[in-house]
Amino acid sequence: MKIKVIVPIIGTSFNDEVRREVASLATPGVEYDVESLDYGPASIESEYDEAIAVPDILNKVRKAEEEGFDGAILDCFGDPGVRAAREITNIVVFGGFEPPMLIASGLGDKIAIVTVLPEVIPMIDGLIAKAGLKDRVVAVRHVDIPVLELTDIQKLKDALFEQSVEAIKQNGAQVIVLGCTGMMGVANEVMDRLKEAGYDIPVVDAFAAALRMTEAVVSLGLRPSKLTYMPVRMKDRKWWGE
Amino acid sequence: MKIKVIVPIIGTSFNDEVRREVASLATPGVEYDVESLDYGPASIESEYDEAIAVPDILNKVRKAEEEGFDGAILDCFGDPGVRAAREITNIVVFGGFEPPMLIASGLGDKIAIVTVLPEVIPMIDGLIAKAGLKDRVVAVRHVDIPVLELTDIQKLKDALFEQSVEAIKQNGAQVIVLGCTGMMGVANEVMDRLKEAGYDIPVVDAFAAALRMTEAVVSLGLRPSKLTYMPVRMKDRKWWGE
Amino acid sequence: MKIKVIVPIIGTSFNDEVRREVASLATPGVEYDVESLDYGPASIESEYDEAIAVPDILNKVRKAEEEGFDGAILDCFGDPGVRAAREITNIVVFGGFEPPMLIASGLGDKIAIVTVLPEVIPMIDGLIAKAGLKDRVVAVRHVDIPVLELTDIQKLKDALFEQSVEAIKQNGAQVIVLGCTGMMGVANEVMDRLKEAGYDIPVVDAFAAALRMTEAVVSLGLRPSKLTYMPVRMKDRKWWGE
Amino acid sequence: MKIKVIVPIIGTSFNDEVRREVASLATPGVEYDVESLDYGPASIESEYDEAIAVPDILNKVRKAEEEGFDGAILDCFGDPGVRAAREITNIVVFGGFEPPMLIASGLGDKIAIVTVLPEVIPMIDGLIAKAGLKDRVVAVRHVDIPVLELTDIQKLKDALFEQSVEAIKQNGAQVIVLGCTGMMGVANEVMDRLKEAGYDIPVVDAFAAALRMTEAVVSLGLRPSKLTYMPVRMKDRKWWGE
Amino acid sequence: MKIKVIVPIIGTSFNDEVRREVASLATPGVEYDVESLDYGPASIESEYDEAIAVPDILNKVRKAEEEGFDGAILDCFGDPGVRAAREITNIVVFGGFEPPMLIASGLGDKIAIVTVLPEVIPMIDGLIAKAGLKDRVVAVRHVDIPVLELTDIQKLKDALFEQSVEAIKQNGAQVIVLGCTGMMGVANEVMDRLKEAGYDIPVVDAFAAALRMTEAVVSLGLRPSKLTYMPVRMKDRKWWGE
Amino acid sequence: MKIKVIVPIIGTSFNDEVRREVASLATPGVEYDVESLDYGPASIESEYDEAIAVPDILNKVRKAEEEGFDGAILDCFGDPGVRAAREITNIVVFGGFEPPMLIASGLGDKIAIVTVLPEVIPMIDGLIAKAGLKDRVVAVRHVDIPVLELTDIQKLKDALFEQSVEAIKQNGAQVIVLGCTGMMGVANEVMDRLKEAGYDIPVVDAFAAALRMTEAVVSLGLRPSKLTYMPVRMKDRKWWGE
Repeated sequence: MKIKVIVPIIGTSFNDEVRREVASLATPGVEYDVESLDYGPASIESEYDEAIAVPDILNKVRKAEEEGFDGAILDCFGDPGVRAAREITNIVVFGGFEPPMLIASGLGDKIAIVTVLPEVIPMIDGLIAKAGLKDRVVAVRHVDIPVLELTDIQKLKDALFEQSVEAIKQNGAQVIVLGCTGMMGVANEVMDRLKEAGYDIPVVDAFAAALRMTEAVVSLGLRPSKLTYMPVRMKDRKWWGE
Repeated sequence: MKIKVIVPIIGTSFNDEVRREVASLATPGVEYDVESLDYGPASIESEYDEAIAVPDILNKVRKAEEEGFDGAILDCFGDPGVRAAREITNIVVFGGFEPPMLIASGLGDKIAIVTVLPEVIPMIDGLIAKAGLKDRVVAVRHVDIPVLELTDIQKLKDALFEQSVEAIKQNGAQVIVLGCTGMMGVANEVMDRLKEAGYDIPVVDAFAAALRMTEAVVSLGLRPSKLTYMPVRMKDRKWWGE
Repeated sequence: MKIKVIVPIIGTSFNDEVRREVASLATPGVEYDVESLDYGPASIESEYDEAIAVPDILNKVRKAEEEGFDGAILDCFGDPGVRAAREITNIVVFGGFEPPMLIASGLGDKIAIVTVLPEVIPMIDGLIAKAGLKDRVVAVRHVDIPVLELTDIQKLKDALFEQSVEAIKQNGAQVIVLGCTGMMGVANEVMDRLKEAGYDIPVVDAFAAALRMTEAVVSLGLRPSKLTYMPVRMKDRKWWGE
Repeated sequence: MKIKVIVPIIGTSFNDEVRREVASLATPGVEYDVESLDYGPASIESEYDEAIAVPDILNKVRKAEEEGFDGAILDCFGDPGVRAAREITNIVVFGGFEPPMLIASGLGDKIAIVTVLPEVIPMIDGLIAKAGLKDRVVAVRHVDIPVLELTDIQKLKDALFEQSVEAIKQNGAQVIVLGCTGMMGVANEVMDRLKEAGYDIPVVDAFAAALRMTEAVVSLGLRPSKLTYMPVRMKDRKWWGE
Repeated sequence: MKIKVIVPIIGTSFNDEVRREVASLATPGVEYDVESLDYGPASIESEYDEAIAVPDILNKVRKAEEEGFDGAILDCFGDPGVRAAREITNIVVFGGFEPPMLIASGLGDKIAIVTVLPEVIPMIDGLIAKAGLKDRVVAVRHVDIPVLELTDIQKLKDALFEQSVEAIKQNGAQVIVLGCTGMMGVANEVMDRLKEAGYDIPVVDAFAAALRMTEAVVSLGLRPSKLTYMPVRMKDRKWWGE
Repeated sequence: MKIKVIVPIIGTSFNDEVRREVASLATPGVEYDVESLDYGPASIESEYDEAIAVPDILNKVRKAEEEGFDGAILDCFGDPGVRAAREITNIVVFGGFEPPMLIASGLGDKIAIVTVLPEVIPMIDGLIAKAGLKDRVVAVRHVDIPVLELTDIQKLKDALFEQSVEAIKQNGAQVIVLGCTGMMGVANEVMDRLKEAGYDIPVVDAFAAALRMTEAVVSLGLRPSKLTYMPVRMKDRKWWGE
């Protein structure tokens, strides 16, 4: 099994960190490759960022299929281009939103998402509505840290712990989903601190969930439905990717 | 009041027809301009088409604001780039989905959409879910005609009449929305034929509704909420549009 | 185009103010007439008030159709008699609820209504439920001022500003709808004060929205669906209006 | 315990039949009185009929309270004036919709309503939406018989049986509610015929349910919430009833 | 009419209190019998407690049918075994959840439940979801008193009053349902105290509601739908009850 | 990692088949054990069957935790005892319902379940409602084959294919979930036949999904939330399992 991880931003500075995370999570026997974009934004924090990231994401997914990958992970909680990618390929494609949300749904009744910034919340609200998860999500909170500043790990962990506690106390949350795939490698410590504080609940890492879900679906021999994501018609398309 | 109509496809062949339609619909005193894309697909019939159309749509909307337009209509039922366009500008922006759906909501309880092709239905289902309109829409049907073949007006009218009757009989529809902005200038005749057949119900033309809604909102001095569509942050973005 | 505005209360004291508002809002070329009730309550602030206002509202709407009006606005946020009026006439009929709510739906995701008194909230909740807008409305708040005391404009503006800020902070509102058509001519100032306070969001005036929506629908050649609002049967009816 | 049954139509021709039904259903020790309207329609089959019936219904309910009745049944499936009546009195008030629907909810998962005419279905849809029962009601069907022709009992029973079978087969109904209080005394036979046909399911008579629910609530010492149905304010009201 | 009350816990200590309550509530002419379990938990405060109570509950219901009872009340707010009991018998079966919730639905728009302990809230949330009552329930609160300590009546009344006030103020509740059938005989006093505090709203006693609803349904000649609760097949079953 | 599969029926006749299936599916390095019940029904096809199966299921899960298993699969589509098992243990517990439904949610928008018999559909409807999946499930169909006759594999495959085609054509299904864990080893062939018939969509095997989801969650270091499934209190419980 070969899985391509597409980091949907320009620059390669995150790639090594993603590779380390993949190495620590991958099931033995599964081969991974990590790649970022040639065109797009430095981070995805708005519908606008997403819009300009998607074309090159689609190029990269198509290439992954041509190179024989069985699955592709579009490594962003906003699921950028996921539906379009499923239209133009026949491989398993997941973003960072569906997998942690679905796994969280199996671990408790009331889910809270803790994401980076207030401006991404309407985008997440839209994903929740489209996924039919409105009855399960009790809050979408944020730590008020831009993606490119998530590197201050201690600050991030403190803020995630604080917002998780608020989600539990104010919103009745029973499961926490980390709402940005850039929040890598911190879920376990947040989970431990919540447990110490008396809240023994799961904290779901979005990227880890995406990786495990992709492996699971490929191993089950399943692929996205071609009645939901129908093949696209041939037609004139003028852009740098076709 | 100045309103820009952005036809979100490459080529200028549709522009004259759109200009004629605008001329017949525009409220006296409102100035319109029609423009299509430099980069994008020949028609939008998939999430993939939408994805590659959006970047240049956003360029065109930004330019419209710079040129002093008060509003922009993104002339496609899929509302391509509408949310991102509202983030990066301060003018009124509507696509072809919200306006006819909202007007239809005020004309009857149960709405049916009749669109072009089966492959766009999941995209429309997503818009319905995000808009919270699931309880109002009883069916999304299609005439099975690609956008570029909508020029056969008689075939289109016949198919729309037929699907509208099915929507009424099979799905209990009480209002019809034409689910493609390319279905211009046919709503009235379909409405008349339905009335003759015993069904005195409104048939809403998506483009006409978008035009009227944009005029109405501009004239009321309202603009999209900056708490839903927050301004985007400065950051490195590498693409042909910035 | 001729539109009748029916002020659904007895007495004519409000009519001049409504006429001034109409004059400032009307699209050139549209003719308006304003009329209040002979029988009914001095204001509508309960389901009971609404019940005794509706019969004469229906008389007035029927008369408007006979006099050649193209549309009628039932000038109350409770949409009193709107559905019955659509049954007994063939003209466009809107109340004060649907138009601002539908326009607000196109300007942001999360809507708050600020109305007059606590006792009208259950009635508004019912309208929200029937309209299928439950997923879009995050709060119905009130300024605790009876309709007949809305004349203290400064007090009203202050209270609306205050409740709007609470709706944003406590309930996550992104768009404000003024929930009484008697709150005329104050939306813009409330909107400006919110913007100064850092909240750049639309504040929708219910009456202005009703007027603009009625003009739009008449100009589009649409009317309420006769499959939702079916013609009434002939039968014995004993009351002062038939 | 004294309960007033208000037959919300003019004329007294139905009153004796209602009295006979009451006599056969009343719990020993409960005193009933039956009264029809002085002003209103001959039958309620539209929002318009309802609108002109409600004022005199409210007069009659107020009088019932003054005369010492503990409860009032507004004998129509449309729940005409129920909410307003609860505002202006302190007694138990039920219409013909809520009681059978609530009892049906306790007898099976999927409910179908079989009512008289197509034109009352949108009104019933509104009641369902306001009651939050959308997830429980799988169909609203009709026998196509006007209220005043329900006297042809054999035709009524045949049509109810037929529509109930369709509701079961086409819509998956598991419980039937007779959607007009004028369909008195037929539920049991319809239920027996369904059982013979292999469908052992409850058929709920709306009037019988209303009577039993009113008795139950009065006997429990409960009354409608004054936070939902708040007392009305004193103000000028000009109509024949005040 | 003969109704069996099954107290779904081991031990007989509660039975006399239940008998006294039944005696004070029963409609003249209705015969009651009260019985507790031979196997099960001392109280039901978790899904686990419920799971081990249900088998003997089912034995007792089956026996009640054999002994000629017309109805059975499974006296717990969790509705333990209600659906299974309806499958294996042809008598009327109610638990303590559906009846008070349905009656409360007829008394006001927004319902709050006040139950015993936090750990039963997810179970109640599940019942609400299955009943389709999500739009009607605004809060599920708890007094933090285990079932076996409900005997301290004064403490219970104080806590119920306090939580009811919070439900009204914080959650907008308009009707209170006591969320444990062990909270017997206190609803009226809580209702009186709320009225004194300015909140004239119904407080529904779950057991009293169950008793009245069961009497009502039996007297109407109705039984649970055999299309929802289908008869069980013969097969090998190995347990102490069959 | 050690996972216990609990086949929730009496008799050991299915165990070898389950062991073969486990052997073909298990990820290398994961140790499995299969065990059936000492007390319970021969198959689960009703709420009654489920009720009498659950106590011994709970015994077996508790034992699995004591024996050092990391996860337990309760091998039935009805999720029998899943919530109670999560209360009394600290290991990962999944039934056969949540895992395939969650995975299916990630593969297409509209899901159909094809189960064994009509009488289990209300139970499945309840699970759907509790999981908040109502907006995603378009149909629950059945092959009309009892669990113990699923051994006629050819008949099963034919019936599943037929019902899947109906679900696609009649209900718009885009993903199929096999709604009984006894339908082992047939999903792939049904999927292939659908593809040949022109429907290239995933068919999800419930048991395979449960196995893969359990492995994934254990490997991620997550466990069910102790705020949803709170620890049970010590109290007197009289049954053969404690």
